[in-house]
Amino acid sequence: MLALHHEQGALRVLERPDPRPGPGEALLRVRLAGICNTDLELARGYMNFAGVLGHEVVAEVEVLGPPRAGAAEPPRATGPGARVAVEINCACLVCPACRRGERNHCPHRTVLGILGRDGTLAERLTAPVENLHAIPAHVPDDAAVFVEPLAAAFRPFEQFEIGANDRIALLGDGKLGLLSGFALAARGHAANTLAIGHHPEKLALLAARGLRVAHEAEVKESGFDVVVEATGSPAGLARALALVRPRGTLVLKSTYAGAPPLDLAPIVINEIRVVGSRCGPFATAVDALARGAVDPRPLISARLPLRDALAGIELAGRAGTLKVLIDPRA
Amino acid sequence: MLALHHEQGALRVLERPDPRPGPGEALLRVRLAGICNTDLELARGYMNFAGVLGHEVVAEVEVLGPPRAGAAEPPRATGPGARVAVEINCACLVCPACRRGERNHCPHRTVLGILGRDGTLAERLTAPVENLHAIPAHVPDDAAVFVEPLAAAFRPFEQFEIGANDRIALLGDGKLGLLSGFALAARGHAANTLAIGHHPEKLALLAARGLRVAHEAEVKESGFDVVVEATGSPAGLARALALVRPRGTLVLKSTYAGAPPLDLAPIVINEIRVVGSRCGPFATAVDALARGAVDPRPLISARLPLRDALAGIELAGRAGTLKVLIDPRA
Repeated sequence: MLALHHEQGALRVLERPDPRPGPGEALLRVRLAGICNTDLELARGYMNFAGVLGHEVVAEVEVLGPPRAGAAEPPRATGPGARVAVEINCACLVCPACRRGERNHCPHRTVLGILGRDGTLAERLTAPVENLHAIPAHVPDDAAVFVEPLAAAFRPFEQFEIGANDRIALLGDGKLGLLSGFALAARGHAANTLAIGHHPEKLALLAARGLRVAHEAEVKESGFDVVVEATGSPAGLARALALVRPRGTLVLKSTYAGAPPLDLAPIVINEIRVVGSRCGPFATAVDALARGAVDPRPLISARLPLRDALAGIELAGRAGTLKVLIDPRA
Repeated sequence: MLALHHEQGALRVLERPDPRPGPGEALLRVRLAGICNTDLELARGYMNFAGVLGHEVVAEVEVLGPPRAGAAEPPRATGPGARVAVEINCACLVCPACRRGERNHCPHRTVLGILGRDGTLAERLTAPVENLHAIPAHVPDDAAVFVEPLAAAFRPFEQFEIGANDRIALLGDGKLGLLSGFALAARGHAANTLAIGHHPEKLALLAARGLRVAHEAEVKESGFDVVVEATGSPAGLARALALVRPRGTLVLKSTYAGAPPLDLAPIVINEIRVVGSRCGPFATAVDALARGAVDPRPLISARLPLRDALAGIELAGRAGTLKVLIDPRA
């Protein structure tokens, strides 16, 4: 099969043997995959990852591998022929973290296209059957391919309570910022949220969902109860600390490379609660797409065949590009 | 009266006019005051503070000023003759933060010896009557003078729930670390807490309360549910992030000057909750002293008359010194 492969700085589209599903795994045929900023970082050497890139996907189940010893029958909804989204953290299921229900933090986990496991920018991949989430028939592929990043956008709602009257600031109008804005709107917080960004055309996507929007240079408000930091830049964190009220909550959604200088005294003096936030609930994201509460398709900037995945990576790295989709069937 | 005064780098013990209590204030005669690391930073220019230093005190009410317009009668327990501890944040009482009960975060506040208000390293000071907490007769002055920093040590218990079986790491064996350890022990967490520090003789004070202790270089455990960072150094924060489990809680008690380089990616990847924590509940601290649940007196390194306060500041800055008390009546 064709796949976008990275190893030691060499990024190539090449032929690889079809993967074979192990015990408890499914063999999946990729219908559509998305390129994430993390893929760009991995291609630059982040995590020292070697393998097939990609962790956003809508796929079709082709074959189930042998059952895992002692495991229950996998649900019919994700059996052969099913169209599915795929959770990226593949957990051991037996360690203390897994038994606590924190599979996304399993210390023994592999992660699709990120850590010790081939990813989705390929014709096929394998994944544990418990990671599969059926996609309702009326949700199109080009919406379903957003389930993974949309789930991440819904994650903060699992981590702490956002009050109905809380004033919210959303920093960043990239993919993560926009999906976070869509999630806030879907939860009824549009009117209480000020989205702060750089790009009028991207902020317009949030204004269309009812969020108030402002260019970064024009923000006059502060004292927000909740600030969601989704800029992916150290400057964003400093700005977030200036916007959050004493005893407010700052959600860190984005990482960035390196260790920039940071003055953390405001966290102590103003008793800020900082909440790191990563992978989210797939079921919630699928449900939001199924109900039409979120439509991520305005984020699609381009759609390329898998053989042109290198051009897709290049395009995804250009300023102004939002989501680049890769179609291995084109 | 005599007072330890700072202005633009000049730190002096000098004669000042006796303060006069304004509406809603009390005139207090200092019985004993403590020197805090923040005083050392203020003397080096932090906050650009000009005035009388000091914010730890046990004092006696001499005179009440005129009542504040529309205010209720102050409680008898803190009337003339009462021995009191004094909350350091002097709030406006009418802004939204004050009405929410967050007086310590009033944006219009003055702070004893730190921000816009003379402090406790003097013969007398004034403070709002609502800031006074009566000290029971059987609590000696040299314990009562610790109420302010001990209240800060109890603050995390107000901010989130620490489970009975949570594994806790306490970083730092300075004054703040030791008082935090005493507070953890008073709340029944001694056996579940590993105190990590540099100084065997200070760690011994915690071991005596039932905490497990370890020299920083010898820690082999990790995956703590809760980590309390009280070292006052940027290295402490990096170490705390390495010790806390995924989805665990990191309490930031200590500030430090400047903006050191910090890699915050672990906060996002491991979904850490970081809780900034500053001033705490005076009533809880007074109660802990009254019940004998905490005895802070082993922290006393020296006791000097007010006229020798400069020597006290110098001594407080030496490695190994814990609490230096200043007695204006000596």
